[in-house]
Amino acid sequence: MDGSKILTTTNRTKLKTLPKRGDYSTGTIYKILDDAFVCHIGFASEGQTFVLPVAYGRGGNKIYFHGGKGSRLFKTIRTGVEICITVTVIDGLVLAKSAFHHSVNYRSVVIFGKTEELQTAGEKINGLKIIMEHLLPGRWDDTRTPSEKELNATMVLSVNLDEASSKIRTGPPVEEEQDTMLNLWSGVIPIKMKPGKPIPAPGLNEGINVPGYIIDYIKRVETF
Amino acid sequence: MDGSKILTTTNRTKLKTLPKRGDYSTGTIYKILDDAFVCHIGFASEGQTFVLPVAYGRGGNKIYFHGGKGSRLFKTIRTGVEICITVTVIDGLVLAKSAFHHSVNYRSVVIFGKTEELQTAGEKINGLKIIMEHLLPGRWDDTRTPSEKELNATMVLSVNLDEASSKIRTGPPVEEEQDTMLNLWSGVIPIKMKPGKPIPAPGLNEGINVPGYIIDYIKRVETF
Repeated sequence: MDGSKILTTTNRTKLKTLPKRGDYSTGTIYKILDDAFVCHIGFASEGQTFVLPVAYGRGGNKIYFHGGKGSRLFKTIRTGVEICITVTVIDGLVLAKSAFHHSVNYRSVVIFGKTEELQTAGEKINGLKIIMEHLLPGRWDDTRTPSEKELNATMVLSVNLDEASSKIRTGPPVEEEQDTMLNLWSGVIPIKMKPGKPIPAPGLNEGINVPGYIIDYIKRVETF
Repeated sequence: MDGSKILTTTNRTKLKTLPKRGDYSTGTIYKILDDAFVCHIGFASEGQTFVLPVAYGRGGNKIYFHGGKGSRLFKTIRTGVEICITVTVIDGLVLAKSAFHHSVNYRSVVIFGKTEELQTAGEKINGLKIIMEHLLPGRWDDTRTPSEKELNATMVLSVNLDEASSKIRTGPPVEEEQDTMLNLWSGVIPIKMKPGKPIPAPGLNEGINVPGYIIDYIKRVETF
């Protein structure tokens, strides 16, 4: 990919198990992040590890997420503690002839770092736009922009993608030599997150059609 | 649900943000766990939080997962450290007329506890069967069972579901009163993980058809 670079590994990002599945190029990492929109954020609070799901967007070399100012998660991770952010895309079930070699095809990214809090209204609006356009390109310009009160109630955080790794399992099952002759089906069942038919909100004016960018979004996820 | 009970909340499981979205009944928690097969496990190692994706299966009031004995993750979480296991099912994009009220429909479970390591060959076989049957019902009896060597290389762990909570966002977008008249589309785009057409492994004997339980699995995910 143009402009992709290889991230320097650290003790935290260097894969110890199955290192051949690792990929430290930003091209690969960005692509995986762009194919999902919910990450799992891990952080410690009073000695306890918590993992919570959060919607995010990627813009350049950062990911962005937002939450209410009262949230325990956001109150904790705004304070500069080290966090771990993991994104996993599931691509298929891998069915070998042996139980042992069953697996899952997946692509995951693990990011280490600290959050930065976006401060000005302009920065926050930009961060929120990145998150929404990541979820559904074209949506931002088709919504009522946040009021000052709404912005004040919202925390927007970013994390640099400087210390990250990706791990990928792809392709058919591995088999032991002696299993290849067994009369069992083996292969992959592909899996994909797919959008369905949009459900208009109750009471929506009937004259308002589903916008073109939503139809495009649904079409973009090609059928199997 | 028959036999469902309400779990006692603890300081770790009690929802602080939007507590009305919380559900502590085992019926709801089991259903969410049964609708996914990859969890994110958070743990601390040398003061650093890690979050890694792991396939799991639920059997009764426990979840099970397995890994190689050399894996950093499994070597750490077998030692009785407190871990946090999170499972998230994404059900849809929630598109309000205001940017502020955009959301995601989801169901998540957060579990706290320590692992127990399954010790005997019989216990391990039982745990592995639970994991495989969770991924794809009917598959276990259609595979070559693990050899003693394969079992010895595998660690199987379980965690009790005694300290857990679920959180659910469902339904249409919330709107501010003054936004209801805006000429913008609002509603929900449902999202679902869907299996595609099975891909036979290269070299698979052509006489081996896709088994009925795989066809059933694909059909069970109803179309939108």
